[in-house]
Amino acid sequence: MTRISPLQKARYGYVPKLPPVLQDEIARIQAELGQPTEAVADREDLKRLFANTYGKPIATLTRGSNPEAGRRRTVGVILSGGPAPGGHNVICGLFDALKKANRESTLIGFKGGPSGILDDEWIEFTDSLINQYRNTGGFDIIGSGRTKIETPEQFAKALENAKKHGLDALVIIGGDDSNTNAALLAEYFVQQGAPIQVIGIPKTIDGDLKNEYIEASFGFDTATKVYAELIGNIARDAISSRKYWHFIRLMGRSASHIALECALQTQPNVCIVSEEVREKNMTLSQIVDQIVDAVVKRAAKGENFGVVLVPEGLIEFIPEVGALIDELNTLLAKEAEVFNRIDDPRERISWVKGKLSGNNQRVFSSLPETIQAQLLMDRDPHGNVQVSRIETERLLIEMVSSRLKTLKGEGAYKGKFSALNHFFGYEARCAFPSNFDADYCYALGFTAFVLIANGLTGYIAAIKNLARPAVEWKPMGIPLTMMMNMEKRHGKMKPVIRKALVDLEGAPFKRFAAQRDAWATESAYVFPGAIQYYGPDDVCNQPTMTLKLEQGLE
Amino acid sequence: MTRISPLQKARYGYVPKLPPVLQDEIARIQAELGQPTEAVADREDLKRLFANTYGKPIATLTRGSNPEAGRRRTVGVILSGGPAPGGHNVICGLFDALKKANRESTLIGFKGGPSGILDDEWIEFTDSLINQYRNTGGFDIIGSGRTKIETPEQFAKALENAKKHGLDALVIIGGDDSNTNAALLAEYFVQQGAPIQVIGIPKTIDGDLKNEYIEASFGFDTATKVYAELIGNIARDAISSRKYWHFIRLMGRSASHIALECALQTQPNVCIVSEEVREKNMTLSQIVDQIVDAVVKRAAKGENFGVVLVPEGLIEFIPEVGALIDELNTLLAKEAEVFNRIDDPRERISWVKGKLSGNNQRVFSSLPETIQAQLLMDRDPHGNVQVSRIETERLLIEMVSSRLKTLKGEGAYKGKFSALNHFFGYEARCAFPSNFDADYCYALGFTAFVLIANGLTGYIAAIKNLARPAVEWKPMGIPLTMMMNMEKRHGKMKPVIRKALVDLEGAPFKRFAAQRDAWATESAYVFPGAIQYYGPDDVCNQPTMTLKLEQGLE
Repeated sequence: MTRISPLQKARYGYVPKLPPVLQDEIARIQAELGQPTEAVADREDLKRLFANTYGKPIATLTRGSNPEAGRRRTVGVILSGGPAPGGHNVICGLFDALKKANRESTLIGFKGGPSGILDDEWIEFTDSLINQYRNTGGFDIIGSGRTKIETPEQFAKALENAKKHGLDALVIIGGDDSNTNAALLAEYFVQQGAPIQVIGIPKTIDGDLKNEYIEASFGFDTATKVYAELIGNIARDAISSRKYWHFIRLMGRSASHIALECALQTQPNVCIVSEEVREKNMTLSQIVDQIVDAVVKRAAKGENFGVVLVPEGLIEFIPEVGALIDELNTLLAKEAEVFNRIDDPRERISWVKGKLSGNNQRVFSSLPETIQAQLLMDRDPHGNVQVSRIETERLLIEMVSSRLKTLKGEGAYKGKFSALNHFFGYEARCAFPSNFDADYCYALGFTAFVLIANGLTGYIAAIKNLARPAVEWKPMGIPLTMMMNMEKRHGKMKPVIRKALVDLEGAPFKRFAAQRDAWATESAYVFPGAIQYYGPDDVCNQPTMTLKLEQGLE
Repeated sequence: MTRISPLQKARYGYVPKLPPVLQDEIARIQAELGQPTEAVADREDLKRLFANTYGKPIATLTRGSNPEAGRRRTVGVILSGGPAPGGHNVICGLFDALKKANRESTLIGFKGGPSGILDDEWIEFTDSLINQYRNTGGFDIIGSGRTKIETPEQFAKALENAKKHGLDALVIIGGDDSNTNAALLAEYFVQQGAPIQVIGIPKTIDGDLKNEYIEASFGFDTATKVYAELIGNIARDAISSRKYWHFIRLMGRSASHIALECALQTQPNVCIVSEEVREKNMTLSQIVDQIVDAVVKRAAKGENFGVVLVPEGLIEFIPEVGALIDELNTLLAKEAEVFNRIDDPRERISWVKGKLSGNNQRVFSSLPETIQAQLLMDRDPHGNVQVSRIETERLLIEMVSSRLKTLKGEGAYKGKFSALNHFFGYEARCAFPSNFDADYCYALGFTAFVLIANGLTGYIAAIKNLARPAVEWKPMGIPLTMMMNMEKRHGKMKPVIRKALVDLEGAPFKRFAAQRDAWATESAYVFPGAIQYYGPDDVCNQPTMTLKLEQGLE
């Protein structure tokens, strides 16, 4: 018999909070439509690409009448990309709403991501299956995957299988790329005269799928709470043991939202924000200086310990390293044959040094040998360096350590520097969703069905007022084209949802910037502890600092 | 103003559960003494070394009368070694009991570990200070350290400073070494005619300070819950993403209690138990075979993912690697000068290869180059390899990967093997103590004071019946000499508390051994989730599986 943890059993009994409007009969929830909308940029291109679905109005779910609600429907759902806490609850909310509207309706899950609809791998959800996944972490109910539906053959295949199942609608749970895909599919189905609606759901722990309408992507809340738990524990270890500097790299492929939120929660000595590094055109050496400055000042107070947060995406955001990586990618693609004939790692490094242009050569030479070697290995299928494999936190430790040796020689530093490195990513993507994410995701899934029942396609489900209690939440549908612009991908202009990087003028960054100098030298650590699912309201029902600051509630 | 997390604020209000006998007036708690005791081994040697304190009776705290309880006392306390969740609560329990007996009594904390009493660095605890640390993680209230009180000068200094403060008693919170130190201090103070009692407290997340009387060391419960949370999250990620094998190394310097407890909680595909490796005289190659076997069988089912737990201490427990490390330590000590003149890492490796004897040479040559290099760097002050710096999980990944390549070439394996490595240690040592550890530690601190009030010295505080609710707990004092034997340390026979390794005949290991073959091929993962401090009883008030199995309750 399958063993289940006590928490999992208890979480089965949790009833996610729904915004009031969604608690009514489905037939009494109406999508109130506003004015036609426009894309954030490149409107003409997008109008052409989305001839049938561009510029739809924003839909607000309100009390009203929807005579179509009770029609028997078949809906499909896909989990796309990396897992994020709450994915199962999106499916539960979707399932419950669909069954509430009509017990005869069917929810189908395509297995293993978008490839599931291409290969026609699927299951039908039943009450007993759904009940095993309520309020749990993971994407394992149907699995996920990273296949993109891109070629004409793939679009045709998706349509063929959707028709085969008699799908009325398809819900795609994913990040910016997957929701772009949802928009393209919605347009394609209309073009082909197939009445199959497509609704997207904003998922990503990275927090970079957000804008005026999408206040937060799901999973960000839980993931940052897990990372903040660990960072807080490590900070408390640092101040208890008083002998280590902990360098912690945090997941978050491009944007630094995760690192920033964790910094706001835990108040580390240093947190690097990639967007600021790029904005200020900072060099690697300046970043090292900033850390060294904190180490030296703390050492003068006898505090030879500390905590440094480093966003995973940093390395590419340092302009001079970004330029180096670009040249390396081109060089190794062009001269692959010659390069691959060199066996010895050191000879490879010196061969590359000889080929690089002026400044890039200088930057490359300034890096520790281990990092030089990492930059030359492990290229992805497009010939790019896999930056997530580069241990930026170790790079910084090595460079800080070497700078401190110099300072010690000059008598400007008398402390001890002993550093430990950590990387947190996979520890949180499948955590049990926080009450916030459990509620939010359930409401998103529920909203997705109500949008379907109201006949909409090419929308993403959204909830407004997220920093306030669920009783004040407002479920909506946002036209996907509204969030799009054209960007270059692999040399071609493509319609994509614009990624939200950390806004250096936004309240979260400003709060951080106002306090970080104090945090650098003081030990102002805050210890959030483990996510709580029960207990006092402010312990188990708080949204992120990012959300509260953005909405003026902190 | 210092910011405090919502959980920390809420935890201030938690009232630790005390065993019934400790809820009475201190003057009505009596230490009931049993028969004289004997050490576990080497009794004659220990009788000689502990002429005044050997063989004391076990003390059971019961309802009775203690006219001495209300005397005004000054008590000192020391935190020793690595932090463990609950340390602050030991101090809180000690403080509350002492103040309950007499508001005029004083508790002094020596700062930064045992060096605090040598250097006379101290603070006096007040209500307002204590209240900031109730039910919190960390050892930061006074800090900790690893100084040992060893030389005659150090013993004299400790006595001098104890006298200076007019100490009636000293409480030492630490692991096996620190409690050995407590026993030696207790004996020394009696020898010197100083009426200063010494009481030890069993601390270590490693769980290896336990025996017939000490059912568990504090911190093990919380630490394993944090690691199990993370392992469970990673396992759920593995089964959601279906593309990585996660190799997770877990803290625990010698014994594998942590890895075993985490395995019982999460049911990974593989968990190596160092004690079994040593017992069965397993080679590194056999360990690799065991993992490869699971990988191949799972790949045949299309499951190219999994979770492997590796105890930190493993490398030294593999007999052939242990022998190699011994020879390396001797060789590099003897030939340090010649060796240090070699600059190039590869030349160092080949020089060492030439010097090693037959089997050790073979084992060394079989290791990946990165591990060979790690074995030759970073020696500790005693000239030993720092095994905790050896990334055993990466070693296993490299060796498994290379074995799989061979099998693939032979057509015996058709899967994909992509592995990620993790190390969990510092993430848990300073977590907020679980309710179990909060209660247990508070009761230990309280017990320590009652033992002092009953005039005892050379004891360690203990609580029996830990797997049952606190209402059934039995507070006791166990004579430290009872847990000791003689062992060789740096070439000399020393009295030490015997470390508890995993008992291969014990219920926890047997449960694991009975199920692991199923876990290897199935994905039988259990997801414990984050430690809960509130909520249903079986979610927030459960002891470890180890404790429940050892006490026949699971």
